[in-house]
Amino acid sequence: MSVLVVGSTALDSIKTPYRENLRLLGGSASHAAVAASFFAPVKLVGVVGDDFPKRYFELYRRHRIDLDGLQIARGKTFHWSGEYEVNMNNRRTLATELGVFEKFTPTLPPSHRDTPFVLLANIAPALQHHVLDQMRRPRFVAADTMDLWLNVALKDLLRLLRRIDALVLNESEARQLTKLDNVISAARRIHRLGPRYVIVKKGEHGAILSAPSGLFVSPAFPLEKVVDPTGAGDSFAGGLIGYLASRSGPLEANLRRAMIYGSTVASFCCQGFGLTATTKTTRTAIEQRAKKLMQMVAF
Amino acid sequence: MSVLVVGSTALDSIKTPYRENLRLLGGSASHAAVAASFFAPVKLVGVVGDDFPKRYFELYRRHRIDLDGLQIARGKTFHWSGEYEVNMNNRRTLATELGVFEKFTPTLPPSHRDTPFVLLANIAPALQHHVLDQMRRPRFVAADTMDLWLNVALKDLLRLLRRIDALVLNESEARQLTKLDNVISAARRIHRLGPRYVIVKKGEHGAILSAPSGLFVSPAFPLEKVVDPTGAGDSFAGGLIGYLASRSGPLEANLRRAMIYGSTVASFCCQGFGLTATTKTTRTAIEQRAKKLMQMVAF
Repeated sequence: MSVLVVGSTALDSIKTPYRENLRLLGGSASHAAVAASFFAPVKLVGVVGDDFPKRYFELYRRHRIDLDGLQIARGKTFHWSGEYEVNMNNRRTLATELGVFEKFTPTLPPSHRDTPFVLLANIAPALQHHVLDQMRRPRFVAADTMDLWLNVALKDLLRLLRRIDALVLNESEARQLTKLDNVISAARRIHRLGPRYVIVKKGEHGAILSAPSGLFVSPAFPLEKVVDPTGAGDSFAGGLIGYLASRSGPLEANLRRAMIYGSTVASFCCQGFGLTATTKTTRTAIEQRAKKLMQMVAF
Repeated sequence: MSVLVVGSTALDSIKTPYRENLRLLGGSASHAAVAASFFAPVKLVGVVGDDFPKRYFELYRRHRIDLDGLQIARGKTFHWSGEYEVNMNNRRTLATELGVFEKFTPTLPPSHRDTPFVLLANIAPALQHHVLDQMRRPRFVAADTMDLWLNVALKDLLRLLRRIDALVLNESEARQLTKLDNVISAARRIHRLGPRYVIVKKGEHGAILSAPSGLFVSPAFPLEKVVDPTGAGDSFAGGLIGYLASRSGPLEANLRRAMIYGSTVASFCCQGFGLTATTKTTRTAIEQRAKKLMQMVAF
């Protein structure tokens, strides 16, 4: 089944202690859509400016991503620049130029409204609502978010939590949202706010799924070298929902495996700047690495 | 089969943001021996002063720990006091009074020299050597260590690495020992220094086993409340070797399960000050929690 991904489509300029890269394809929706495309047909909903490089349209197309929902607006594409510290865990935003993103309203083409799996990748909660308003009874809706929305759009976000099946967020966001230091307590609290599934991303320490049947812990795929973690969380969410959309059978069992596949795609993402490593991988390579990851928790 | 545990036997005064406890039973060997005792007969090798409370001898005995190798010397028992910060991850030593530990030489009773499983819990590497010198071809030797020995006894420690099967250490110690930031690279490097098995403890993020067959990742058992993490690493190592000693069959498969059992006992340890929660648990409760932990990584 197919996946609709809405979020930011951006150009990222990323500085790490090792290198600097300008105007790479980035944004939550780009990472998530490419990640999901290894498993299922993807429909991308976003906006780019008229400066958006042709090669990035081609990149989406190589991943057979449906671009009917990608608006091209007059003006500049959303541009983010940031810097990582040596340990690659701390990130600092240097500049955010919203460009065409400032006036973006995600209007879905009629062909998109029946998409069964929906990922509301990181974007303003009001826009995530707007997408859901246009959907016809999707089977499974996951949403990602970020600290910014907890600060400036908490009310919208809380209202969103009652409309989704799964919330994907990182540890510090879980703490900020619930005011609870302990991540398990925080997950429990988030369930009470709405979502049946809560997925807490812990970076190099993996991710935790809290579900009605209990907890599931996925390790991160251990990498000896992280080149650029930008988009790893979005790739995780994209890989997860893509895998889910590709499977029949009971959702919760699929979700456990989907955590492994999400972690796997995220690990590829970390091995190159922007989307460079993710786009070079293949379903076969993903399967091999996912298998390795599953062996790391097997007895 | 039985386990010999050598290490420190101490009185710990522990301050956390919530409470302060004076002169609790502590020390690496105490935590490890009690943890191992749930699975196998344990022989404890250590030293205490003539001020050592009778109730702690009784505690050891309740766990059927063989005390023939526990020396009672004139003077004061090793006393450590420390303080935890709010997040329970950072620990600060307030005072260390070595007492009788200063002149401790672990001499093994003849009955101890054939013990098949040996845990050299955290103690000076020279003493760990001295124990091995007295052993007759043990089947499996694991050693734990700490940053102090990396600073003041590195040569002894490096020599020890060539004499043991498994090194257990935490993430920051692995980095310090290898000068490598990446934990997987660090584990690889440590293999080259001697041990066939390298176990890196990551606290609340679990532990990683690096073995000839590949990596194994054990999550920590998720706790909603950590009362006192003192001794959790020692409990992990003790639970691990105790479980190993209790199993027949291929070592490496047992080692994967032993990681889960080590994590499980460590989680009980964190639920009370000193050994109070560990000593209250039962093999049945451990089995139940280990089963839960295994379900958290099952598909």
